[in-house]
Amino acid sequence: MIYLGVDIGGMSIKVGAVDEGGKLLSKCTAITPLGDPQKAIELIADLCREAVDRAGYSWAAVAGVGAGAPGTVDGDVVTYATNIGWYGVPFCKELTRLTGVKTAVGNDANCALLAEVKFGAARGYRDVAMVTLGTGVGTAFLCGGTLLLGNGGAAGEGGHMRVKTLGNRCSCGREDCWELYASASALERRTRKIVETHPQGVMASIAQREGKTSGKVFFEAYNAGDEDAKRELAAFQRDVADGLVNIANLFRPQLIVVGGGIAAQPAMIAPLEDLVAEQTLGGKGNPHVKVVAATMGNDAGIVGASVQVM
Amino acid sequence: MIYLGVDIGGMSIKVGAVDEGGKLLSKCTAITPLGDPQKAIELIADLCREAVDRAGYSWAAVAGVGAGAPGTVDGDVVTYATNIGWYGVPFCKELTRLTGVKTAVGNDANCALLAEVKFGAARGYRDVAMVTLGTGVGTAFLCGGTLLLGNGGAAGEGGHMRVKTLGNRCSCGREDCWELYASASALERRTRKIVETHPQGVMASIAQREGKTSGKVFFEAYNAGDEDAKRELAAFQRDVADGLVNIANLFRPQLIVVGGGIAAQPAMIAPLEDLVAEQTLGGKGNPHVKVVAATMGNDAGIVGASVQVM
Repeated sequence: MIYLGVDIGGMSIKVGAVDEGGKLLSKCTAITPLGDPQKAIELIADLCREAVDRAGYSWAAVAGVGAGAPGTVDGDVVTYATNIGWYGVPFCKELTRLTGVKTAVGNDANCALLAEVKFGAARGYRDVAMVTLGTGVGTAFLCGGTLLLGNGGAAGEGGHMRVKTLGNRCSCGREDCWELYASASALERRTRKIVETHPQGVMASIAQREGKTSGKVFFEAYNAGDEDAKRELAAFQRDVADGLVNIANLFRPQLIVVGGGIAAQPAMIAPLEDLVAEQTLGGKGNPHVKVVAATMGNDAGIVGASVQVM
Repeated sequence: MIYLGVDIGGMSIKVGAVDEGGKLLSKCTAITPLGDPQKAIELIADLCREAVDRAGYSWAAVAGVGAGAPGTVDGDVVTYATNIGWYGVPFCKELTRLTGVKTAVGNDANCALLAEVKFGAARGYRDVAMVTLGTGVGTAFLCGGTLLLGNGGAAGEGGHMRVKTLGNRCSCGREDCWELYASASALERRTRKIVETHPQGVMASIAQREGKTSGKVFFEAYNAGDEDAKRELAAFQRDVADGLVNIANLFRPQLIVVGGGIAAQPAMIAPLEDLVAEQTLGGKGNPHVKVVAATMGNDAGIVGASVQVM
């Protein structure tokens, strides 16, 4: 049997066929039709058939379709996904009607966690926090082997913990949410700051060559020994650790898996476990919390979505 | 059948017989022998027999004994309870040996939550956060009907979320933990501040009469219309809401139950639900979080401990 995974994003929809070992057998992509869930679900059904064809299977081999949506999912319904303009969309009912197979849908951050738990860095763990450093900070939690969903599936918004009192306004309306300080966007702001304050420095010359101030630029300067990058990375890591320690104290996971592009940088991840251990409650009296990088990469969304129907 | 509940505190051990409706039938108390778990467990066994006698039952009517301990509990073992000096105590094994009945043990904050879920303010709810405003701030979480335990039972330390950047040091070693600002002790500090800055005011005269600066003093002045008390209560409630919103975003409970002596004051609880709604993510797109006062009172620890063997 094969399993289909659907990663619904604000830019694109990606569909892949996945085998029971978590291997991606094929992948199809299309631009997300925003604000038109019916059109999007019909497109997903088409992409599913295409993904099965490309993988070299017949439709009879498909055990089910699992999807990840960028918002709140309550059971089979995407209740609130403002990025793509979906509100109260009975996703599974419609996709099952169109495909004839079992379907499931979940929040995309939860799907990424499922991918790590089933096939990646968190295999064999039952208490896991996944923290994705991207435009914002996404979080998902496995508690005693069960995904934390909360009322109406709306749990897991750890990026919107207040962690400071500096008066910076978050897009959510609150002040000083963690994601203002710990996202990849926050590191990009630190990069821009270095470029502006040291226009003749290493960081500025790399940024000029690349034409941007991304995490890639930052870590290239860091790896070239740039002192500004060293200082700013240490400060950024303290900001990341602030929220990780909150999570450690609240959930006491065995493992925190850090995802997102910048998490692939060893220098980004390496000090976090010690920073968390230093500040987490109970010291040696309570279980240690490991901090590791995600291993499932860009296709975690597809593979994790498919795990829901395995 | 009757159920025995044991509330192990830093000052006293309380044991009660509880019926299946959650009614406390009897209660016995003794001073906690600190740092001597064997002696404490023998004392608990004696108190259990006394509680059954006082309730007018024979020992044959006892279905089991549940206990709540002030620390980390992993399965049947109290692994880390520094207040009472217990480290790695095989509580259930020893208490079952002494009593001959089924035993269970859990963290005391979890027991208080169980009391509210089974018999109190949270009856019928499956996603519940309990927040107890005392010397510190204790938290416990019911997620999809299951207690959040975390690795080794060490989850649920929400009082030690970092929520500010003011540089105040917490007893845990971290800076700016929520409990520095949202505990009953924090309200007492605000009370002392009012007394010191307005020695001729309403608050000062009540404090002098009572010989203390407790929450009781604070709310007596508040209820007498003291303007300082009004201002400080509003500021204190904003500090309480900071952590409640973090909890709402992370766990999205249906209900947050606020316990502790000051939670019995209607003026304390009333504005919290609106403060949480204003700042919680998703506005109307996501489920509302109710905020209510605990209803189980002082005996919640005993009754909740007994729920573990019901």
